[in-house]
Amino acid sequence: MNHIKQLYGQSLALLTDLYQLTMAYGYWKNNKINQEAVFTLFFRKPPFKSGYTVAAGLGTALEYIQDLHFTESDLNYLATLTGNDDKPLFEQAFLEYLSNLRFDCDIDAVPEGTIVFPHEPLLRVQGSLLQCQLLETALLNIINFQSLIATKSARICHATQGDPVLEFGLRRAQGIDGSLSASRAAYIGGCAATSNVLAGKLFDIPVKGTHAHSWIMSFASEDEAFQAYAEVMPNNCIFLVDTFDTLNGVKKAIEKGHWLRERGHELVGIRLDSGDFTSLSQRARKMLDQAGFKQASIVASNDLDEHLITELKTAGAKINIWGVGTKLITSYEQPALGGVYKLSAIREPGEEWQYCLKLSEETIKTSNPGLLQIRRFSDNNGEFSGDMIYNELMLPVGSAKMVNITAAEEHSTLSADKPHQDLLIPILRKGQLVADLPSLSQIRQRVQTQLAHCPAAIKSLKPLDIYPVSLEMNLFQLKQSLIKKLR
Amino acid sequence: MNHIKQLYGQSLALLTDLYQLTMAYGYWKNNKINQEAVFTLFFRKPPFKSGYTVAAGLGTALEYIQDLHFTESDLNYLATLTGNDDKPLFEQAFLEYLSNLRFDCDIDAVPEGTIVFPHEPLLRVQGSLLQCQLLETALLNIINFQSLIATKSARICHATQGDPVLEFGLRRAQGIDGSLSASRAAYIGGCAATSNVLAGKLFDIPVKGTHAHSWIMSFASEDEAFQAYAEVMPNNCIFLVDTFDTLNGVKKAIEKGHWLRERGHELVGIRLDSGDFTSLSQRARKMLDQAGFKQASIVASNDLDEHLITELKTAGAKINIWGVGTKLITSYEQPALGGVYKLSAIREPGEEWQYCLKLSEETIKTSNPGLLQIRRFSDNNGEFSGDMIYNELMLPVGSAKMVNITAAEEHSTLSADKPHQDLLIPILRKGQLVADLPSLSQIRQRVQTQLAHCPAAIKSLKPLDIYPVSLEMNLFQLKQSLIKKLR
Repeated sequence: MNHIKQLYGQSLALLTDLYQLTMAYGYWKNNKINQEAVFTLFFRKPPFKSGYTVAAGLGTALEYIQDLHFTESDLNYLATLTGNDDKPLFEQAFLEYLSNLRFDCDIDAVPEGTIVFPHEPLLRVQGSLLQCQLLETALLNIINFQSLIATKSARICHATQGDPVLEFGLRRAQGIDGSLSASRAAYIGGCAATSNVLAGKLFDIPVKGTHAHSWIMSFASEDEAFQAYAEVMPNNCIFLVDTFDTLNGVKKAIEKGHWLRERGHELVGIRLDSGDFTSLSQRARKMLDQAGFKQASIVASNDLDEHLITELKTAGAKINIWGVGTKLITSYEQPALGGVYKLSAIREPGEEWQYCLKLSEETIKTSNPGLLQIRRFSDNNGEFSGDMIYNELMLPVGSAKMVNITAAEEHSTLSADKPHQDLLIPILRKGQLVADLPSLSQIRQRVQTQLAHCPAAIKSLKPLDIYPVSLEMNLFQLKQSLIKKLR
Repeated sequence: MNHIKQLYGQSLALLTDLYQLTMAYGYWKNNKINQEAVFTLFFRKPPFKSGYTVAAGLGTALEYIQDLHFTESDLNYLATLTGNDDKPLFEQAFLEYLSNLRFDCDIDAVPEGTIVFPHEPLLRVQGSLLQCQLLETALLNIINFQSLIATKSARICHATQGDPVLEFGLRRAQGIDGSLSASRAAYIGGCAATSNVLAGKLFDIPVKGTHAHSWIMSFASEDEAFQAYAEVMPNNCIFLVDTFDTLNGVKKAIEKGHWLRERGHELVGIRLDSGDFTSLSQRARKMLDQAGFKQASIVASNDLDEHLITELKTAGAKINIWGVGTKLITSYEQPALGGVYKLSAIREPGEEWQYCLKLSEETIKTSNPGLLQIRRFSDNNGEFSGDMIYNELMLPVGSAKMVNITAAEEHSTLSADKPHQDLLIPILRKGQLVADLPSLSQIRQRVQTQLAHCPAAIKSLKPLDIYPVSLEMNLFQLKQSLIKKLR
């Protein structure tokens, strides 16, 4: 099922920056449309100073590309655009060319849910220069945001030490899709459920929720409100206890718990939404336990993130389900991942590849040339021990020499028989899907498996070590020679 | 034209939190669907410590509500949801009720583009308790985000002192609608154009853009790349000059400027995307001026926001068009506005209103009861001098006594003949539009007019004064008596 199509019911070819279209027009006018390009999508800094990043959004990006085309209405709109002299920006013949354009690029990418690190290629697009260019903005929009949220979600789930996390962010999300695709990514990262019913329907994510303060306020008393809720929804009772006085609310919830139990139902739990969570949850836990409701959960929600959850855990709060909203859905601490998409090779039809890089004053910000691939090495226990970025066109046979990416003085050599895996896999060939795409729950499971193989020092909220990423020696030397040539 | 319908092609009734549906089910089961409620949407703190906030999103919210209904596919999905005991969460008869539900609430709201302040009602929904509840999450999602971005945009435009601001954020936005509705709100707040072509098409916003580094890199040299661009797009030439060496790039751009002029075209400008903007822009300005290109613009883009723009202006940077991306589109400094939606009155059919408020430990966080309205007073020059929040059911005739909302000891009296205007206007009656909705450019113009009447000390990026907002005395006393009763 294509969720983009299901939600939007149309191709979104205009979801791009105008300059992609003016460049496309330029390529078309300059007979460059048959030039073959390779673009690489990567980021330079992990979000939140995290030791790792979760790659996410590939499934959505592929849905976006599938059947992508310019509609008549799109082309009519483009025909209205003018330059500085009020004359049309695009020739009619170019718009006709666009009307027949179908995307037939090749894409290689790391499977969704893979743990990745700065400078590593998350995705590679190979094909017509014009087509690669037209895909840039949407690919960045989708993958930047979902990777950001999946990483935030993984960190929050790390902080809860196994307690379920519920994503409650819709009302504070950045627009409609700022909620939907964040719910998807939050689930990938480890959240157990969402409050967003449309996200639940579109992506088959479990949905959770019971009642708000307004439920209580619409009745004459809290007691009456709880009683009405217990009667209506005996199999889903989590009472929000803080409308007037939290501990009095807990007392009332316990009374309804007895009432439910007499009728063959169990109180699912209570929810705290304000106040001192540590002492309130401890006192509520004691009250629930003493009344015979040891299985009842204590849910907390109110401006939670991985840092506050860690503090509450450390202070001994007796919360065992965490509702996380604003701080997760907007990635409040850092609301954007700065992923970029750079031309790394280009060739005339039938000729040799010309390697490309974008210079920067800082070497670390200069992009890498070539058809880039990641080789991930593991130790004998399967723990990830380091990654090597290499150019598929010039990998040496046998042992690989490499240079650490953040500390260029550190060289190392790894024998080819050390356990390793290449991470980018073929996804599209000539625009057609050649990989079996995993379900969302398989992607979610992949994150857990990947994290299980990730060193503890890297997974820590404040990482104690930097995961080693190196450039293979031939790639390193190619890059140095290109930099010298361009300067 | 309904953009929600145009973009999504379907009703989005499931864009809500599950608890709205479980509460709706509870209201239905408890025969409370005919209770009439009033909910009030407001925020408690301005974003970015701004002195003012721009209300935005109403147009989109109305498009969302128009023709809102549960589709068969929605109801089939809801029928699959289960409680803790794996039994269905909702009775079939309730789903049938939902299938026939049409939204016929009344809505009063401040016109989109109005300057508003903490605790003021931006929007009031009056109607069936069940329907009001079902609208909560989507209303908050849409209005919180667009008000946030419109405010950010107004602040950035304030910092550029009249220079045009171009919104370039799509690639870093929070999902697809995180870009589209932010482009809309950024335009409302004062931006001159967007790079997002789909936003341009949907909302009739001017679109801008020329070329990226990859254009340069796809040619053998910068000179060849500029020449090709000048030939292709002589009426839209803004050359990106920093791919290899910025000042050398400016020199090349000037050469192409002469070439264009010989052919009857004018160089539109150059774009800087890295480096020291102050000195580079000063040197580039001098080079352009000396070469006879005084009209050519200098565009800058790279992590700009109102604070950096102010610094650059102060330092004498010669930039006259500002491209703003990540920091605007995600409201990076604060990516969410904490607007809430609270029940403020309820009644049985034909009976008296019962006033409601949500208690909080802090008086300032306790919501206001009633059918709330804002009365804005102006001085004789039309400058806004203070706002009074009152309950439409108990406004005194003649002069109004009121209590300052942040400093309860400050009382004041205003005579009724002081110039004033009530800000909330009827928008929907029984679900039907009763207001003339302004165009996007009219909304954008309203922001400018409102800001022109706003005291300078409030408009400053770091406000020098707090705009006075008071509770009318009857409302203040009603609130105090309700608090006493509930405690």
